[in-house]
Amino acid sequence: MTEHLVVVGGDAAGMSAASQARRRRGRDELRITAFEQGDFTSYSACGIPYWVGGQVADRDALIARTPAEHREHGIDVRLRTRVTEIDPDRRRVRTRSLDDGTEAWTGFDQLVVATGAEPLRPPLPGFDAPGVHGVQTLDDGAALLATLERDVHRAVVVGGGYIGVEMAEAMVQRGLAVTMVHRSAEPMATLDPDMGRLVRVAMEGMSITVVPGAEAEEVLLDAAGRPRAVRTSAGEFPADVVLLGLGVRPRTALARAAGLPLGGSGGLLTDPSMRVEGADGIWAGGDCVEVLDLVSGVRRHIALGTHANKHGLVIGTNIGGGRAVFPGVVGTAVSKVCALEIARTGLRERDAAEAGIGFDTAVIESTSRAGYYPGAAPMTVKMLAEQRTGRLLGLQIVGREGAAKRVDIGAVALTAGMTVDQVVSLDLGYAPPFSPVWDPVQVAARKLVSNREGPAPKSQRA
Amino acid sequence: MTEHLVVVGGDAAGMSAASQARRRRGRDELRITAFEQGDFTSYSACGIPYWVGGQVADRDALIARTPAEHREHGIDVRLRTRVTEIDPDRRRVRTRSLDDGTEAWTGFDQLVVATGAEPLRPPLPGFDAPGVHGVQTLDDGAALLATLERDVHRAVVVGGGYIGVEMAEAMVQRGLAVTMVHRSAEPMATLDPDMGRLVRVAMEGMSITVVPGAEAEEVLLDAAGRPRAVRTSAGEFPADVVLLGLGVRPRTALARAAGLPLGGSGGLLTDPSMRVEGADGIWAGGDCVEVLDLVSGVRRHIALGTHANKHGLVIGTNIGGGRAVFPGVVGTAVSKVCALEIARTGLRERDAAEAGIGFDTAVIESTSRAGYYPGAAPMTVKMLAEQRTGRLLGLQIVGREGAAKRVDIGAVALTAGMTVDQVVSLDLGYAPPFSPVWDPVQVAARKLVSNREGPAPKSQRA
Repeated sequence: MTEHLVVVGGDAAGMSAASQARRRRGRDELRITAFEQGDFTSYSACGIPYWVGGQVADRDALIARTPAEHREHGIDVRLRTRVTEIDPDRRRVRTRSLDDGTEAWTGFDQLVVATGAEPLRPPLPGFDAPGVHGVQTLDDGAALLATLERDVHRAVVVGGGYIGVEMAEAMVQRGLAVTMVHRSAEPMATLDPDMGRLVRVAMEGMSITVVPGAEAEEVLLDAAGRPRAVRTSAGEFPADVVLLGLGVRPRTALARAAGLPLGGSGGLLTDPSMRVEGADGIWAGGDCVEVLDLVSGVRRHIALGTHANKHGLVIGTNIGGGRAVFPGVVGTAVSKVCALEIARTGLRERDAAEAGIGFDTAVIESTSRAGYYPGAAPMTVKMLAEQRTGRLLGLQIVGREGAAKRVDIGAVALTAGMTVDQVVSLDLGYAPPFSPVWDPVQVAARKLVSNREGPAPKSQRA
Repeated sequence: MTEHLVVVGGDAAGMSAASQARRRRGRDELRITAFEQGDFTSYSACGIPYWVGGQVADRDALIARTPAEHREHGIDVRLRTRVTEIDPDRRRVRTRSLDDGTEAWTGFDQLVVATGAEPLRPPLPGFDAPGVHGVQTLDDGAALLATLERDVHRAVVVGGGYIGVEMAEAMVQRGLAVTMVHRSAEPMATLDPDMGRLVRVAMEGMSITVVPGAEAEEVLLDAAGRPRAVRTSAGEFPADVVLLGLGVRPRTALARAAGLPLGGSGGLLTDPSMRVEGADGIWAGGDCVEVLDLVSGVRRHIALGTHANKHGLVIGTNIGGGRAVFPGVVGTAVSKVCALEIARTGLRERDAAEAGIGFDTAVIESTSRAGYYPGAAPMTVKMLAEQRTGRLLGLQIVGREGAAKRVDIGAVALTAGMTVDQVVSLDLGYAPPFSPVWDPVQVAARKLVSNREGPAPKSQRA
């Protein structure tokens, strides 16, 4: 008997799951239908800031696989079709065509819920006006580009997280005067404030106005109903275009209505095979689920394409008759603002304190290459370790070229549960064009080890 | 009572040990004397190719700490003083001044043997002529630079390992026509031949003539006694200057004469605290010791400044009353030839076969950034895994900017004993300017996992 796999959501998690299931089970075994409310499949939402900024010239470059390509692989993609109800008991979903409103029920044996996330848009005056843009979908990007064709000179970015800083870069690339307003004391609140301060200082050096501690209150509109300024608790800032970088939340209204289990963040709860808890044959992945933080043991919502792709691979493997698990994350993220690279993994001071873990920290300055080698660029590295055991807890890096991807050393070490002593001993790649003789990550680990030991002990021998 | 620490050899391992011991124990507790036969201390031998190539203008930039700086820290550095005998029983070393021939005995409580390595110079006609250069010491570099001041146009590099390729780059930088002759089928024999081939093709694209399977036989000299050609088993190659890149061996004649234990490579044997086996209060580190390969369990000789520095830190900590160990290496090395980056860690096919480990391999092509992001550079990644368990065994990368340091992911995963399934799940840094959504290392791991599974199983459900 042919099984029917229905996928809700045609981007990273959903289509990776469909593609992987198809690789493992032929068309005679598995029929696959994917419903997508938009016009595109399998695109890189993470690439939108670079398309808007002009580094990527062509929207289509962001599309990894078109609906037509999926269809060639035997995946029946239905665009502009919204799933409006999931009926787990009768194993069916209800859909509505966005073109003609037609409704229909479609039965499934296996279901993948990959409904993604939706940008937070504050319910404040003016935030739904034209000229106020999120950048979650390709359509959002196209709308923003249309705005930038107009006579716009001043951009205000609301929110100082990674979407905020990437959009600030895009606006700088487009030649606009950029102001970034955000709530916290420093931008990039996924870093500790001492590291976020380095981001702010660097952004100010790029002539970006950074306004901390600013709660957005209203987008003030001109006579044509387009932005003229953003009013915040820290003052009013002129704006011809407003960018939303306030983060996202899991898009799970559909799952909630179907009685599927949600966690504290509103994301779907799954087991490590990415099966929705308690729901046989129903799987979920991508920006609509919670993931296990392997360092703190807490479930969190982290919307990142890299996780979505892994979820899809795991789901597709399991539907395809194999066995795969997604063990969890360590909270790795890398980003940049123009030439400034920003990276983090593991716990911040705040996270460790909230988890009740006593910790030590070290902050060091080093360079991307041997100090004498041309192009050696400075970087600041912060490391956290558990006080009691010396276990690595977190790593944050702010620097220039060659800084961000060093966070992978910490990501792997965190996954393995290494101590900072073990990080000091790691056999990392060294040659003068690539690293100082002690990699900056190990310089930070050395400092932590040395801080942990305290002042040198008096010799026993003397 | 004040102890006396004597250090034999004033470069990375010896002076790191001395400095770390000093950090932990004051001058009233520990007297430190360091004997160095040359004129310099604590310099980056790894940087010499870039000084010769002209990227580093100044020799002094390669010196991390001068003798005067060490003396300020209470380390009595004796330059141009060769240790000619170690007497472990009477706890003393004999020295000879290279200036006036004076001999003397110096007693020690603790001894650090850090005599380094010596370049292999084949006992063949012409190889000791002026114009034939090794690049082990700063004096070697200065001598080579003096040769390059002459009317030289054609360089022959003998040896295709990392010193060979780095010297080939230096000669290209200096505008010479470069031929590299080497014994093996492909250059960079620390890679598998299929990956070495990529290095050869790239070097040929840089107009470097690469001659494989060539055994050097003689340096043919002109009337003035300087090189005019190198004769090899694969023909004769004109040369105004000859560079030796045949590798090094541990400089342990002194240790051997003292009856200290040596391994199969001729390197000193130590325990994980870097204490010479069976020799209380005698320590050894750097290019004169063998290290444990954590992947194969075999002891090997690997001359690398990064290991030497770690050995020194461990020795100095232990002498200073702390406790530290050097657990071993996984065989990580990174290098480059002009824009080509080369990296390896763990076992090659040959190593795994010799260790009797059944293995699977995967080779993939990917890019340093998202494919659509400007500057995305191609790279080839090869991965080896143990057939029975899926345990990661090795990783090799050849590519352009952004390729080499990705090997650190493999180095940490090897140290942790991860399987390729675990590598696929790693939470590595992703953003379009830094990586495709699957890091190239994970693309290789995915291929291995998929190869290991074989053809997709027929579904159990159908």
